[in-house]
Amino acid sequence: MAKAALKSAASKTATRSETDSFGPIDVPADKLWGAQTQRSLQNFKIGGQRMPVGLIRAFGLLKQAAARANMKLKKLDPKLGKAIDAASAEVASGALDEHFPLVVWQTGSGTQTNMNVNEVLANRANEMLGGKRGDKKPIHPNDQVNYGQSSNDSFPTAMHIAAVRQIQDEVIPALAHLQKALDQKAKEFGKIIKIGRTHLQDATPVTLGQEFSGYAAQVKNGIARVKSCLPHLLAIPQGGTAVGTGLNAAKGFDKAFASELSALTGFKFVAAENKFEGMAAHDAFAEISGAYNTIACSLMKIANDIRLLGSGPRSGLAEINLPENEPGSSIMPGKVNPTQAEAMTMVAAQIMGNNVAVTVACSNGHLELNVFKPVIIHNVLQSGQLIADASMSFTDNCVVGITPNLPRIQQSLEQSLMLVTALNTHIGYDNAAKVAKKAHKEGTSLKEAALALGLLTEKQFDQWVRPEDMLGPK
Amino acid sequence: MAKAALKSAASKTATRSETDSFGPIDVPADKLWGAQTQRSLQNFKIGGQRMPVGLIRAFGLLKQAAARANMKLKKLDPKLGKAIDAASAEVASGALDEHFPLVVWQTGSGTQTNMNVNEVLANRANEMLGGKRGDKKPIHPNDQVNYGQSSNDSFPTAMHIAAVRQIQDEVIPALAHLQKALDQKAKEFGKIIKIGRTHLQDATPVTLGQEFSGYAAQVKNGIARVKSCLPHLLAIPQGGTAVGTGLNAAKGFDKAFASELSALTGFKFVAAENKFEGMAAHDAFAEISGAYNTIACSLMKIANDIRLLGSGPRSGLAEINLPENEPGSSIMPGKVNPTQAEAMTMVAAQIMGNNVAVTVACSNGHLELNVFKPVIIHNVLQSGQLIADASMSFTDNCVVGITPNLPRIQQSLEQSLMLVTALNTHIGYDNAAKVAKKAHKEGTSLKEAALALGLLTEKQFDQWVRPEDMLGPK
Amino acid sequence: MAKAALKSAASKTATRSETDSFGPIDVPADKLWGAQTQRSLQNFKIGGQRMPVGLIRAFGLLKQAAARANMKLKKLDPKLGKAIDAASAEVASGALDEHFPLVVWQTGSGTQTNMNVNEVLANRANEMLGGKRGDKKPIHPNDQVNYGQSSNDSFPTAMHIAAVRQIQDEVIPALAHLQKALDQKAKEFGKIIKIGRTHLQDATPVTLGQEFSGYAAQVKNGIARVKSCLPHLLAIPQGGTAVGTGLNAAKGFDKAFASELSALTGFKFVAAENKFEGMAAHDAFAEISGAYNTIACSLMKIANDIRLLGSGPRSGLAEINLPENEPGSSIMPGKVNPTQAEAMTMVAAQIMGNNVAVTVACSNGHLELNVFKPVIIHNVLQSGQLIADASMSFTDNCVVGITPNLPRIQQSLEQSLMLVTALNTHIGYDNAAKVAKKAHKEGTSLKEAALALGLLTEKQFDQWVRPEDMLGPK
Amino acid sequence: MAKAALKSAASKTATRSETDSFGPIDVPADKLWGAQTQRSLQNFKIGGQRMPVGLIRAFGLLKQAAARANMKLKKLDPKLGKAIDAASAEVASGALDEHFPLVVWQTGSGTQTNMNVNEVLANRANEMLGGKRGDKKPIHPNDQVNYGQSSNDSFPTAMHIAAVRQIQDEVIPALAHLQKALDQKAKEFGKIIKIGRTHLQDATPVTLGQEFSGYAAQVKNGIARVKSCLPHLLAIPQGGTAVGTGLNAAKGFDKAFASELSALTGFKFVAAENKFEGMAAHDAFAEISGAYNTIACSLMKIANDIRLLGSGPRSGLAEINLPENEPGSSIMPGKVNPTQAEAMTMVAAQIMGNNVAVTVACSNGHLELNVFKPVIIHNVLQSGQLIADASMSFTDNCVVGITPNLPRIQQSLEQSLMLVTALNTHIGYDNAAKVAKKAHKEGTSLKEAALALGLLTEKQFDQWVRPEDMLGPK
Repeated sequence: MAKAALKSAASKTATRSETDSFGPIDVPADKLWGAQTQRSLQNFKIGGQRMPVGLIRAFGLLKQAAARANMKLKKLDPKLGKAIDAASAEVASGALDEHFPLVVWQTGSGTQTNMNVNEVLANRANEMLGGKRGDKKPIHPNDQVNYGQSSNDSFPTAMHIAAVRQIQDEVIPALAHLQKALDQKAKEFGKIIKIGRTHLQDATPVTLGQEFSGYAAQVKNGIARVKSCLPHLLAIPQGGTAVGTGLNAAKGFDKAFASELSALTGFKFVAAENKFEGMAAHDAFAEISGAYNTIACSLMKIANDIRLLGSGPRSGLAEINLPENEPGSSIMPGKVNPTQAEAMTMVAAQIMGNNVAVTVACSNGHLELNVFKPVIIHNVLQSGQLIADASMSFTDNCVVGITPNLPRIQQSLEQSLMLVTALNTHIGYDNAAKVAKKAHKEGTSLKEAALALGLLTEKQFDQWVRPEDMLGPK
Repeated sequence: MAKAALKSAASKTATRSETDSFGPIDVPADKLWGAQTQRSLQNFKIGGQRMPVGLIRAFGLLKQAAARANMKLKKLDPKLGKAIDAASAEVASGALDEHFPLVVWQTGSGTQTNMNVNEVLANRANEMLGGKRGDKKPIHPNDQVNYGQSSNDSFPTAMHIAAVRQIQDEVIPALAHLQKALDQKAKEFGKIIKIGRTHLQDATPVTLGQEFSGYAAQVKNGIARVKSCLPHLLAIPQGGTAVGTGLNAAKGFDKAFASELSALTGFKFVAAENKFEGMAAHDAFAEISGAYNTIACSLMKIANDIRLLGSGPRSGLAEINLPENEPGSSIMPGKVNPTQAEAMTMVAAQIMGNNVAVTVACSNGHLELNVFKPVIIHNVLQSGQLIADASMSFTDNCVVGITPNLPRIQQSLEQSLMLVTALNTHIGYDNAAKVAKKAHKEGTSLKEAALALGLLTEKQFDQWVRPEDMLGPK
Repeated sequence: MAKAALKSAASKTATRSETDSFGPIDVPADKLWGAQTQRSLQNFKIGGQRMPVGLIRAFGLLKQAAARANMKLKKLDPKLGKAIDAASAEVASGALDEHFPLVVWQTGSGTQTNMNVNEVLANRANEMLGGKRGDKKPIHPNDQVNYGQSSNDSFPTAMHIAAVRQIQDEVIPALAHLQKALDQKAKEFGKIIKIGRTHLQDATPVTLGQEFSGYAAQVKNGIARVKSCLPHLLAIPQGGTAVGTGLNAAKGFDKAFASELSALTGFKFVAAENKFEGMAAHDAFAEISGAYNTIACSLMKIANDIRLLGSGPRSGLAEINLPENEPGSSIMPGKVNPTQAEAMTMVAAQIMGNNVAVTVACSNGHLELNVFKPVIIHNVLQSGQLIADASMSFTDNCVVGITPNLPRIQQSLEQSLMLVTALNTHIGYDNAAKVAKKAHKEGTSLKEAALALGLLTEKQFDQWVRPEDMLGPK
Repeated sequence: MAKAALKSAASKTATRSETDSFGPIDVPADKLWGAQTQRSLQNFKIGGQRMPVGLIRAFGLLKQAAARANMKLKKLDPKLGKAIDAASAEVASGALDEHFPLVVWQTGSGTQTNMNVNEVLANRANEMLGGKRGDKKPIHPNDQVNYGQSSNDSFPTAMHIAAVRQIQDEVIPALAHLQKALDQKAKEFGKIIKIGRTHLQDATPVTLGQEFSGYAAQVKNGIARVKSCLPHLLAIPQGGTAVGTGLNAAKGFDKAFASELSALTGFKFVAAENKFEGMAAHDAFAEISGAYNTIACSLMKIANDIRLLGSGPRSGLAEINLPENEPGSSIMPGKVNPTQAEAMTMVAAQIMGNNVAVTVACSNGHLELNVFKPVIIHNVLQSGQLIADASMSFTDNCVVGITPNLPRIQQSLEQSLMLVTALNTHIGYDNAAKVAKKAHKEGTSLKEAALALGLLTEKQFDQWVRPEDMLGPK
């Protein structure tokens, strides 16, 4: 797929010449990128996974904030700086997405994507100033757009920006949406007494609402887990330049940048106290990926429970009805399946895998630079998007439409042997066990077995064994 | 990205009505898909990862083979069967890729994609026969295209086909290409004696060729590992229909199908002995993913070694020169980086993650059906493509251009203290240790230390300590 | 725990002095180890996971084979060699297990354990020859016991030996035991027709025997997967010495060693063609760990299915009865749980985790030596043992005692709506769907719905919809 | 190993009879456990990994707090309660460790270990009250010791207690110890200017202290990550009893228990708001395991860097000297290896694997109960201990003894071509690139190349290119 795309880009006839320190190279005339981007396209025909669009747009914000900070610090001619600012705003808006063709599998510092951004912005800003693509005048990709920056601090800063924005704009709202729906069901089902199950075996009663309250609590905790990662994600290494020292950046650039970026985004970014850590390691991403992994555990459990409770329609547990959204089978007519739960559990499996990819990548940095940056952000943003999208879809197409199957719930509750637990405090565990075992063996009701054993009177049984009294401590 | 694509598809004005057991629904007039595909598009706005194109084309081959087998078994009117065959060939060729818009995160049986295929083929074949899109006449997606099939056996069969084709056409050739280049370097560098390193510490000598021979052996074994997975991948569950029993398939369909498929593809597919296993579990994919994971270990090690050996240019190990393909830094002029090794190690991290996603997915099947099929094939095909593409890129853009840095190799060898090992058999381990420790502590050569300790004569030293005699047993 | 153990060892009053190149050090007088072992004990107070006993005993075989090969090659005085041989046999037998106190978390080459072995053997063999512990005379740990060997080739060779023995003696027999029991159940349950389930939803019928045949097939394939790893595990790097070149080993030692080892063990070990690969990488262990991971997927699925089918006793699927082995609950009297299935699924989770540990470890080798050897073998042997032990326990305490719950099976089958699938070929998929939907909505039987819709006669229904005819193609 | 242990336990001749609801069974006379423990011993001969001792001792605290709370709530006769309290204190102290022989691979609720605790406490407390082992009088394991409790809330509560204690008493102190040592080195090495390396290639200068400051920052953040997990770990499900409802517990027991437990431990435990979540899911453990996984990434990077910087002694980077703790090689005399770094990186690999085991286990709960509890706590406590122990060992045996190799540092710095970066702001990126490339190609110094190109004067070069001015923004 990627190959086809690259090929068609290459086969366009109209080209112009761009140059870098390796010399001239032809690029498609209708594209804004320059020589280094073109070289990467040719040298990395791998996979087809584009650098995530969320990262590209974050780079737009980054270059905007950098231009503004450099103008404020008198390091950038305002005429040039404003053009860079305007061009960057276009990148941030998504209007120039098509000019960022590079894949994830490139240099591990993301230098080629940083240069792709620098090249596009230089060409676009020069055009705005009446110049020509490829001339690098008056704005040069390295000397002006990248002023006081290195890929080594910029790329990870863009990673932080993209991750924070996704968390705030997509992940948390979607989880909150799911939590609200689950809370609502917990309330709605609050009086429906049903059999509990432990070890998948019949156990003492719960309400259907209590079950859903557990799910809601999991999602609520998940939101807290994501939020607890924000402090490390809001601390950005911009200003560290090549190795963390800040060489070639203006004094105060790091703080000025963070301030401009915060103004642009509305999030409280701060300059990282230790920029060596922020470039040589990406523990903040292992951390958020770990939070996503924990959320994947929660979502797997919730979706799995819901399909178990909805199994049937006749020969499963069948305690809840799931919305019927589409035909379920190409061969079994009339079949309806828990498809949203399936999509969710597949998403969970993917996020667990992505977490391992991020772990391996984060642990393998060398000295001043971790060079697994693209694969880290690829996985983190994918996991974030999958959580957000799947939570919305699962909520709207499944959770909100769940209804209880009351007759079945009643039937399962009544026949349960584990109501015997209510007898523990009256006749002791060992005697209660005898009752349950006898009933199970002989296929009778608990009451019949208890009376046959002479351990209590019918009146006592009726008084002691009441599901509605078994839903909490007394 | 996915959302935008879906939206633009939906906003097209021209539509036609299609129907399924849920009723009528509008679909884009210029697309061949039907009602069930459209419903999935609307119900699963998750991620944006399309069902892999390799799987879609495999489905083309599958439907072609199924039509032929059903015609042979007299279950399908040849007029209709031939039209299905012709339409399927178009899908197999990739000509209809754009008509398969569904994402990975759908029902876990892949039913919606099987129906997407059935719908496209029915519409296309009916057109060929002079019919109209949406009429389902004379060819019905379920009754003719899907005759004797279920998603439950077809989707996994398409998974097997796609995996086998990728292995044979891409993975093995790319690994063989890499192995050949490494073998070539092993030969080319066969006489270059250099310091060995264990624990990253100086050790006894090896040749540079011996180092590369180890890498070549790893890749060679990797090819064997992939091949050892083929028997289970070539055994396909087609013919099991809904639950593995083969209900509604014609007697002999499984074998007839495997035979047609083998003829179409040139690979020796066979009907799985036990179709329950092939639908309820996908261990064959955990197996191939495990082989890819082992290969990822190999590639990580090789690429990591090569960047270590190439580190420098002045203050690293600097024993080999890597090809310079592009500028390495946006801030450090003239810097060249081991970018192909970085892409390769990122690919390795991804494959390790993908293996965990596959593992979780494969282990979570329930009863007659594993419903993590799409996420399994998504990861397996991605890992396969990444191995193939990265191996080609790494070979052509890095390995073949590696040259030795002879002066540095000579310097490192000469100053090594571990040549002392040659003395073990002459003066014993404990005495040899004294020599090495003295030389290290005093910054002298081994010979100086040995003579100072009076443990041997200069002549003996020169006779015993010869790197060229330390490259094998004596 | 480990700390306590180490402390108590250290607090023993009687000691003797042992020396290495770092000088003298006190060791417990009643232990056979020497100075380097003692140093490791003091420097690595980490965890408490001892080097696996299977590895220690494999080292016994290794040193025995090495002594024999060196005698044959005239490199070792037979008097000394025979004493080493005899002492090694004691290590191989397990008689000296207590003299190997080191933990996994030591040097990554396992050098300290190789020296532990060398030291114990030298002391023990010297004792046999009338010498004294600590004297290193006439047998020196390095100069005689370790003659022609390095930790770098010996430790991985011991890894190979331990893994192969465990596979042959424990893993394969245990899996075969499980497969046999499942096959037996497949036969025993061959005529019991029951409802199938896909997506956990009611589907077309299968026999209970067919379900178990799928499990048996999974285990059978698992055995084949393990066997396919043997060729790489049987190829051993012994003879490569320090860096793979074989320096200081006698010419022909590698082959002579492999031959002696094969004679001792009965397994066909061969000298690895490329010893650089066998020391710098451990892909063979990533491979076997991957096979164990695939088997873990199988076992997770099987155990999970069995607890699903056995869920109840009254309000679950309840189609099979599991043996009752122990009280299930500390609070719910009479409760019986699928405990063997739970142990098995926990084992599966552990093996999946171990596989990631092995993957990370195998991918992180540097140049001539992978220095994650102990953690690799720790995880591989643990996974192997868990598969073997859990398979035996699950078979004997669960599988063999499973019985069908015939009344429940019959009831679930009869009420299923998915028998409607049999109508596809008679009235078409769309009409059949109408029947199923009507019956589901109105809570009636399929026949009632079909007749109400006027799609067939009662006689036709009775003739077409017969579970016993739905178990295979027609 | 486990088998041997079990066997020897079983072969003891003196036994007494104990009973449970399955009947009588012989147990070793000298052991305090009862019938259910003995049954588990016989039914689960798997692996040999004992239930972690930290969990057993946490259970001692738990039963103590439960007895106190039940006495306070007038549910337990004070005479009996005080005996239980006293016996529990013995368990908490570790004095009875040998009476807890069960392995991890048992029932997934840990019921057998909860019963092991109940049985030991009943026997021990009855002895204290003058009773006899096995009589269950006056104290019954279920009716008194387990009063108001279930394994389903007790086992996870013990998990929480054990994890919190380990974090507070071991993990955080050990990480703080490491951080302090790294901080100290950062200060100590603050003036040592050296070459930086990105992509493992020569880059602009840093100080050795700046490098260590990055490591210190990683560890500091790791401590914060662990702390951020405490709120969810301090919220305990005790009081939920069998299914989360609290059936059979006294009203107010949950809060009274948390209060007693806090008093006993000094940590602020609270009753979980939602006990369904705390029993059916263990996301809090996926969370802490994720934090440990992130710390493993940090530790892997730090240890790997330190061995890279210490590589040599002559033909590596050789910028730092690591302490020499033991002989490094059984064949290469005088060799010293970075063994502590190797132990640390192996520990990191294990923790990454453990995290996957925990993830799989946490995601696979069903309905009211997650039945992977033992494998979860086994891995979490192992990871915690490995982090704590390895951090102490690495600090004391490696970090504190690191010294700089000043001559080598100076040499590498001087010859670096990346000092050219200082020229960017004077002669532009493209010209600076020409200088670096010319110097590299011709093997000259940067100054020679710059002058030859006529881009600046010697005086300018000396003024502009000064490593000591390249350590921060200007």
